[in-house]
Amino acid sequence: MPARLQGVLAPVVTPFRPDLAPDAERFARHCRWLLDRGVGLAVFGTNSEANSLSAGERVDLLDALIAAGIPAARMMPGTGTCALTDTVRLTAHAVQAGCAGVLMLPSFYYKGVSDEGLYRSYAEVIERVGDARLRVYLYHIPPVSQVPLSLPLIERLLRAYPQAIAGVKDSSGDWSNTKAMLNAFAGQGFDVFAGSETFLLANLRHGGRGCISATANVNPAAIHALFEHWRDDDADARQQRLDAVRGVFQRRPMIAAMKAAIAHFGGDPAWATVRPPLTPLGAAETGALLGELAASGFAMDGLREVAAA
Amino acid sequence: MPARLQGVLAPVVTPFRPDLAPDAERFARHCRWLLDRGVGLAVFGTNSEANSLSAGERVDLLDALIAAGIPAARMMPGTGTCALTDTVRLTAHAVQAGCAGVLMLPSFYYKGVSDEGLYRSYAEVIERVGDARLRVYLYHIPPVSQVPLSLPLIERLLRAYPQAIAGVKDSSGDWSNTKAMLNAFAGQGFDVFAGSETFLLANLRHGGRGCISATANVNPAAIHALFEHWRDDDADARQQRLDAVRGVFQRRPMIAAMKAAIAHFGGDPAWATVRPPLTPLGAAETGALLGELAASGFAMDGLREVAAA
Repeated sequence: MPARLQGVLAPVVTPFRPDLAPDAERFARHCRWLLDRGVGLAVFGTNSEANSLSAGERVDLLDALIAAGIPAARMMPGTGTCALTDTVRLTAHAVQAGCAGVLMLPSFYYKGVSDEGLYRSYAEVIERVGDARLRVYLYHIPPVSQVPLSLPLIERLLRAYPQAIAGVKDSSGDWSNTKAMLNAFAGQGFDVFAGSETFLLANLRHGGRGCISATANVNPAAIHALFEHWRDDDADARQQRLDAVRGVFQRRPMIAAMKAAIAHFGGDPAWATVRPPLTPLGAAETGALLGELAASGFAMDGLREVAAA
Repeated sequence: MPARLQGVLAPVVTPFRPDLAPDAERFARHCRWLLDRGVGLAVFGTNSEANSLSAGERVDLLDALIAAGIPAARMMPGTGTCALTDTVRLTAHAVQAGCAGVLMLPSFYYKGVSDEGLYRSYAEVIERVGDARLRVYLYHIPPVSQVPLSLPLIERLLRAYPQAIAGVKDSSGDWSNTKAMLNAFAGQGFDVFAGSETFLLANLRHGGRGCISATANVNPAAIHALFEHWRDDDADARQQRLDAVRGVFQRRPMIAAMKAAIAHFGGDPAWATVRPPLTPLGAAETGALLGELAASGFAMDGLREVAAA
């Protein structure tokens, strides 16, 4: 049984080959670079373009990571899809692979569904997977999924499945919601992860366990350092520096911007590729991004070595 | 090459067994009942709970329908998913099976994506399928997908793929949008289907080709009769009667309500099952629905015979 996850995790960006097939080798190298900087692997998240992959592609990629020696105990793959059967398949596969947990979107095609329907949806997955090792982190990201997870829904799931329901990633961007989740459930072994490092310090100060943040793909060491030093006197100053870096990425399409930065700092242009419906940054946008990053003194260390490995 | 689709199509509701597996036999029987009433088969639509099925389940169901003798030439399966590779797989399979067209949602997980990204997404599918028989009906349903298809996007797709881009289903519920599509593209062999029978008469009067409507699952003959008689003097009266029936279903969760009606009129309670995240109508809700339908003189003829076949 892997240890309970905590700290900083990255929804690992997924590299693609020119034919848009996932590139398992580059993926494993980026995972290793992240692990070396203290960051865990929330592979197949929103920022991983995971919903642009088929279930079979995800299964193959996870198998490839594990075959490459990336430890499943540091992984929280995203497994929530629209389709009950895909979610069950991906979740069962992740558990059998030894992953420490799974990050589960609600079934997100239908909008305005009832809490009863969402409850049945999660319950059905948990029952079908039927594995005592399953640890589900609920994924609340209403700006993208458009299907929010309410506090009463979480309470009901936690009551029915106190072992399987392990926590939440709150990507609402609304600290008052994160705070409400902490107040309601953090005392019951329910681990609240902020959806970005913006709320990492606040979350830790109120009993949360860390964050799962896009920008951990590009700024892992500094974000992890705040997790390590959040009780230190300089924690607020660290938080401010993280916010400044995040701001540069957040001003453009995040996924394309992070991939452009990885391509640049790793000397590996292939990284800039995204799958439609996303588009890569253009040359001018990339120039502006890199200019802003340079002006702020930001760099990604060690990526070239990883790319050459 | 199947004839161009026109008239009324139903996004065929998908029956499930008690274990929530799709029930191919009941599905084929309902398709036959619809065909006998003049209605074509937009299987795997929103009202089919298609996004609650895996790609493999859809492939198997389509194969089962064809094996059961349901003509592919009357089918427009939904094939648009979040994932490029699933959409390509489903679309290629539908074309190879001889389907007259496919109804294609945009990749719908990411919100606020650019027209450029949506263009690349559709173009990539069309190029990869690479089959001159492909006829794509774009699926504009912003209330559910939250990813609208703009007129400039349609124009660009139509210019690049004048043969493959065959038309649109407009489920915006906004007649002025349907009218704008008709004005812009109906003269170029682009077939506009209204997203419900509410706009069937208006659509036909302005050069549209028909409608693809949930309620065609339960009221097929009368909706088809309006398509057949839309130039007759009683067309407006027919439209009003259709609207009244639709209103009864639309006042509750549509999919569950239609399945409850099929279960009742077919004497086949198994039909009431839905997949989470949807929930079936409760007993009181079902009673209210059936009471309203009875008061309006509505019935579904021939379903019992189909169920017994």
